[in-house]
Amino acid sequence: MHSLVIRNVRPMGGETTSVTIREGRIAATSEVPEDTEILDGGGAILIPGLVEAHTHMDKTLLGMGWYRNEVGPRLIDKIDNERMQRRVLGIDPARQSARQAVLAASLGTTHIRTHVDVDTEVGVAGIEGVLETRERYRDLVEIELVAFPQSGMLIRPGTVELMEKALQLGAQVVGGLDPAGIDRDPKGHLDVVFDLAERYAVPVDIHLHEPAELGAFSMELIIERTKALGMQRKVTISHAFCLGMTDQDYVSALIDSLAQAQIHILTTAPSSRPAPAVKRLMEAGIVVAAGNDGVRDTWGPYNSPDMLERAVLVGLRNNLRRDDEVALALDTCTYGGARMMGLDDYGLEPGCRADLVLLDGETLAEAVVSRRPRKMVMKGGKVIARDGIASISAP
Amino acid sequence: MHSLVIRNVRPMGGETTSVTIREGRIAATSEVPEDTEILDGGGAILIPGLVEAHTHMDKTLLGMGWYRNEVGPRLIDKIDNERMQRRVLGIDPARQSARQAVLAASLGTTHIRTHVDVDTEVGVAGIEGVLETRERYRDLVEIELVAFPQSGMLIRPGTVELMEKALQLGAQVVGGLDPAGIDRDPKGHLDVVFDLAERYAVPVDIHLHEPAELGAFSMELIIERTKALGMQRKVTISHAFCLGMTDQDYVSALIDSLAQAQIHILTTAPSSRPAPAVKRLMEAGIVVAAGNDGVRDTWGPYNSPDMLERAVLVGLRNNLRRDDEVALALDTCTYGGARMMGLDDYGLEPGCRADLVLLDGETLAEAVVSRRPRKMVMKGGKVIARDGIASISAP
Repeated sequence: MHSLVIRNVRPMGGETTSVTIREGRIAATSEVPEDTEILDGGGAILIPGLVEAHTHMDKTLLGMGWYRNEVGPRLIDKIDNERMQRRVLGIDPARQSARQAVLAASLGTTHIRTHVDVDTEVGVAGIEGVLETRERYRDLVEIELVAFPQSGMLIRPGTVELMEKALQLGAQVVGGLDPAGIDRDPKGHLDVVFDLAERYAVPVDIHLHEPAELGAFSMELIIERTKALGMQRKVTISHAFCLGMTDQDYVSALIDSLAQAQIHILTTAPSSRPAPAVKRLMEAGIVVAAGNDGVRDTWGPYNSPDMLERAVLVGLRNNLRRDDEVALALDTCTYGGARMMGLDDYGLEPGCRADLVLLDGETLAEAVVSRRPRKMVMKGGKVIARDGIASISAP
Repeated sequence: MHSLVIRNVRPMGGETTSVTIREGRIAATSEVPEDTEILDGGGAILIPGLVEAHTHMDKTLLGMGWYRNEVGPRLIDKIDNERMQRRVLGIDPARQSARQAVLAASLGTTHIRTHVDVDTEVGVAGIEGVLETRERYRDLVEIELVAFPQSGMLIRPGTVELMEKALQLGAQVVGGLDPAGIDRDPKGHLDVVFDLAERYAVPVDIHLHEPAELGAFSMELIIERTKALGMQRKVTISHAFCLGMTDQDYVSALIDSLAQAQIHILTTAPSSRPAPAVKRLMEAGIVVAAGNDGVRDTWGPYNSPDMLERAVLVGLRNNLRRDDEVALALDTCTYGGARMMGLDDYGLEPGCRADLVLLDGETLAEAVVSRRPRKMVMKGGKVIARDGIASISAP
């Protein structure tokens, strides 16, 4: 029975200690067998694997030529342009998701939830491609697929059937998108999403870009359905820009309802628009996760797969300056994402899967803001990257 | 007469060409003497030196132990805490500014405007320290000092005299700070600032954090004085958060007045609060510059001296996604800063000082978002950094 000790590490930046790993899991430190392999952590900070809780691996342009972005300003401009560019540029979902998977793993991400386009043009080819990556790189990173109707569902007949096919193929979550803004039928859209969730017994994760009172209305419809179906802890609202609206009384009421329905909030901490207040949501007991969203795609050039960079952006967006607040920002990229994805054996406690990252840094906050190459990344007890370089290379 | 040709570079990401440098300046390409030294640019992108138009070099904690931030939420908490920590931590302005100068130069910054604290506790020691750095590292980076009354001026008797002393010692710009919010006397504060500017014939750069209508009132007072004293093109308002206020009619009127008075706006593109809309200001003809503000100091942990990182944050904050918009974000960190600081011989045209940076990237936008180590930095025609490493090391 293989066992391993990582000596000389500081869990979450605390006191120096050792961590024992047996059969891919963290063991109680007392149980150290004779034949144990020993790694020296060099005084690095130990954290559980970073969790990328919202991205779009099927359509990143990583490793392809630079895409010159000349897209219009509206949401629908970006959606329509992307569907077209998929053909023009030849964006291969298997290859592109593999590139992002390997890069993310080298950066310490051990779990990914990715929204994969399902529409009447691409069908389920994106799902199939990312499923291929999920299997091929399963020792590197765990990938969860959301069947995502990026171009709308009711406005494009045939999409619902494709969503169903995606779930049959292996997508683990049903997605949705702006029930009013894109499908123009909030009740109809959400009824389909929750019907799929019920029939396939899968969680829900809905993109809700709709701002202010419009988004709040859609959010109420989501809360109603979550409670009616007993789907507490199984529903995530991604973006949830409406929680950044001006009417603070309305925001308070929504936060109370979300907490009661145990709905999770996913944020990218966007700096150019109203957004959920991370600390306030956490204080209300709501699980807050973070994601990088699309990485270098036709939507925009800035995002990277680095979840420590996202932690910095969460910190900047939410004015989290104190060391204890930087730790909160990191929490959205670790434990928050794990709770959102329902990972039971996540963390640094005995019994948890040994999905671990060693960070170079004097304190936890320093490690986050400096975001130097990860000293070591371990997935299920095996070292899969050192000093920023993954043991497997991407296509 | 020393001359040099950099072959195989792409100015601003355009067509491949050569640049000839004579006596530290860019020459017309035709004048290439026989004994010319030749450098190969390897197809890199050529831009003029990055301009850090707002920072606080006297109080960065770079290279010191990690400072555990436990500061309260108000502006005055941060100001008071910093004055105390200066003593507790032993922040040496000469040493710390030297560290930032060298790091900034290695990142391609060739010009810096730094606000240096002047108060009744530190006196002009900060000014003296940064002046030492300015002289010592003048071949690496040009530093312009703003005498900055961080702790207030009228509320701390003796500060005005120290400000005057700072200008006599060599500070080149007179600073100011929240005329209402800190000094509690907008008219009094601004009268002193503009009186100093007039008597010492120096430009003005005022920190204006005051939000919404309060900041707008202070801004109006600044505009009135700028016009009355004929100080067009000599006044910068830093932060100018009030330009992010809700009342768009008022914002439009302020923008018109600022454009008319040729007042410059400096932004850090903060993501956690209302801020000036960069593109809108540029379209109104206002010079917009950018700065990193304090780098790793007692105010907060996130900022780095990298002006390409700032360009990314300007882009994210202002939703600048298209390639032509990413170029605008970079402009705030190059030409915008140069115009703000009144640098006459800045740019890539013949006659300009050879303050140049070679960026690794396929396109200008790609180089900005990737922000890889700078391939080469040249100051006044001399190579001062290669592949991210400066030729001179910091204390």
